[in-house]
Amino acid sequence: MDHAATTPVDAKVLEAMIPFFNAVYGNASSIHSFGQDAKEALDSSREKCAKLINADFEEIVFTSGGTESDNLAIKGVVRKGNHIITSKIEHHAVLHTCEFLEKHGFEVTYLPVDKYGFVNPRDVEKAIKKNTVMVSIMHANNEIGTIEPIAEIGNICRDKDVLFHTDAVQSFGKIPIDVKKMNIDMLSASAHKLYGPKGVGLLYVRKGVRLTPQIHGGGHEFGLRSSTENVPGIVGFAKAVELAKKNMNRWAEHEKRLSKMLVKGVLKIPDSWLNGHPEKRLPGNTNFCFKHIEGESMVIHLSMKGVAASTGSACSSKSLKPSHVLTSIGLSSKDAHGSLRLTLGKDNTKKEVGYVLKELPSIVENLRRISPLTR
Amino acid sequence: MDHAATTPVDAKVLEAMIPFFNAVYGNASSIHSFGQDAKEALDSSREKCAKLINADFEEIVFTSGGTESDNLAIKGVVRKGNHIITSKIEHHAVLHTCEFLEKHGFEVTYLPVDKYGFVNPRDVEKAIKKNTVMVSIMHANNEIGTIEPIAEIGNICRDKDVLFHTDAVQSFGKIPIDVKKMNIDMLSASAHKLYGPKGVGLLYVRKGVRLTPQIHGGGHEFGLRSSTENVPGIVGFAKAVELAKKNMNRWAEHEKRLSKMLVKGVLKIPDSWLNGHPEKRLPGNTNFCFKHIEGESMVIHLSMKGVAASTGSACSSKSLKPSHVLTSIGLSSKDAHGSLRLTLGKDNTKKEVGYVLKELPSIVENLRRISPLTR
Repeated sequence: MDHAATTPVDAKVLEAMIPFFNAVYGNASSIHSFGQDAKEALDSSREKCAKLINADFEEIVFTSGGTESDNLAIKGVVRKGNHIITSKIEHHAVLHTCEFLEKHGFEVTYLPVDKYGFVNPRDVEKAIKKNTVMVSIMHANNEIGTIEPIAEIGNICRDKDVLFHTDAVQSFGKIPIDVKKMNIDMLSASAHKLYGPKGVGLLYVRKGVRLTPQIHGGGHEFGLRSSTENVPGIVGFAKAVELAKKNMNRWAEHEKRLSKMLVKGVLKIPDSWLNGHPEKRLPGNTNFCFKHIEGESMVIHLSMKGVAASTGSACSSKSLKPSHVLTSIGLSSKDAHGSLRLTLGKDNTKKEVGYVLKELPSIVENLRRISPLTR
Repeated sequence: MDHAATTPVDAKVLEAMIPFFNAVYGNASSIHSFGQDAKEALDSSREKCAKLINADFEEIVFTSGGTESDNLAIKGVVRKGNHIITSKIEHHAVLHTCEFLEKHGFEVTYLPVDKYGFVNPRDVEKAIKKNTVMVSIMHANNEIGTIEPIAEIGNICRDKDVLFHTDAVQSFGKIPIDVKKMNIDMLSASAHKLYGPKGVGLLYVRKGVRLTPQIHGGGHEFGLRSSTENVPGIVGFAKAVELAKKNMNRWAEHEKRLSKMLVKGVLKIPDSWLNGHPEKRLPGNTNFCFKHIEGESMVIHLSMKGVAASTGSACSSKSLKPSHVLTSIGLSSKDAHGSLRLTLGKDNTKKEVGYVLKELPSIVENLRRISPLTR
């Protein structure tokens, strides 16, 4: 139940990848038939990924993952003295990139969010200044699942002639995205969040956006990202996209049903609540707080019972700092430490949710009994 | 016979990777047991890769490939006004990175090479100035296989207190490397050149070298390269390293024997010669020139006969420019266009070499007959 951290590679995805490891293993830049066969697989994968979000073939740049995509999008368009608008609840791939740029002559506005984690489009509009070049607001939050009003934000940005980037790592393949209708100029996605392999991501870059490459070399990926293409990984990504496209509604309904059951059950535990919006969230995302205990202890005890969960996001789970997302929606540092994220996937079952609902109350109770935070 | 472009993933490597796609598929940053199992695999892979080059565990930073490693090494240590020394025959991942930096307030010296492609260590020494911060000279050239005197260059750099980076993408796992004995501060390598998967590389960074990360985010890889770790890819890389370590001498002897046979046979074709040094080259590398014809035509005709070959390197094979390596060793642009690289691997056979020796003469003859370049 930690699908927001990563997902297993779907059997069909792995099956699609296998031939590209040692049968069709050519370098896609080679002009011989071995290379051209790899190139064809690369091209058709690009087409598939583009179609999912109503983008064009040449607007998809494959990268090593969501983090690299975010870095490329942001660092690729800014010039010294530029102003960037983002939110306080972005993924660290965006926040730390912005903080790095701030130290190097750039200006950044970190917009606040409301108690559900929503960015107000009016705040975006008001924050736009003469030197604003880009707005980067995530599509869905990785911790609390809140789905941001990115179509409205996209509209405002297009109106004001400012580039709009969205980190869609959590939403890509989970909920519908149309880059044209939503006025998105750049979008980051990652394969391993949707049953594809780790180490592959993409950046959608709208035709006409001028991007400076961040990795220089042989000029791969339309000159925007040099490196021998990870053909098996990209083929796997495309297969995962194909499956997601076909099953999106069904999977979302399934996850919503399980989430509802989970939320209903968990909230029976005293002094607990759900973080984020009750409806406008990713179908598989749930995020709870439990008074007086540490999320990390819950994760460890659940792990001993065979359940994968998280507190904060996986990427910062080793840090002692409370989640920046939870403090941004108004939680105290103490309460934020008592958070538990359970993120459901297509293969989770009612039985598994039932198991968690059976085990969790006693874990919480036992931890509260020994907790120095309890009064 | 295009192993310098890429190699098939060894069956044992693929076997080692498979469980990490959908059994041990955790995010290595997750604190639950699924994550910790992935973390253990990551740690032991790092240890294996470190050992191959006599480095320490915490000196290995996994990346998405050789190109990213080169970019991280170079951009990670320079500050505005700094001077970098490199050679004219580096891979584009180094050259284009240096050219990019040159446009942004950095100074770069591109050292010439002799007719075999050797950088003279004395030239490195003479080029070092007060503002020189790093020297980047490749270990073995990707086109002509020339093995550079990097231990001598490393010595000079250590003496002069200048950082020494080497792009070892072609040599890593093929010939011995000892980063301590050779005084190497940073070294780039890639998995897919040694029967490992595409999309994975590493940068060795000596303890004490201060590097600015180029991809910001969750703080993975000791804070030097953020992104969810590509565990299956890294496990595959480590397995490939293990195989390379065990079989290095045997594979090198095998490739040398085949290369010798190939060179002897090919040079019977009139108006042909071997580029690079006859001895001090990678065991599997051969690079020929044939007067009056285009390398690309040879590659296409060989491909029709089922043979993978290249002209220039795969990464720039689509470019119309003659190879910068071949022109740097003194070839005319016309002659450089007539180059053919045949790079042998562990699984090539005498029979295959015999087949190429049977087919190539008539391909050359036919192309010369129709060539506008023939007189």
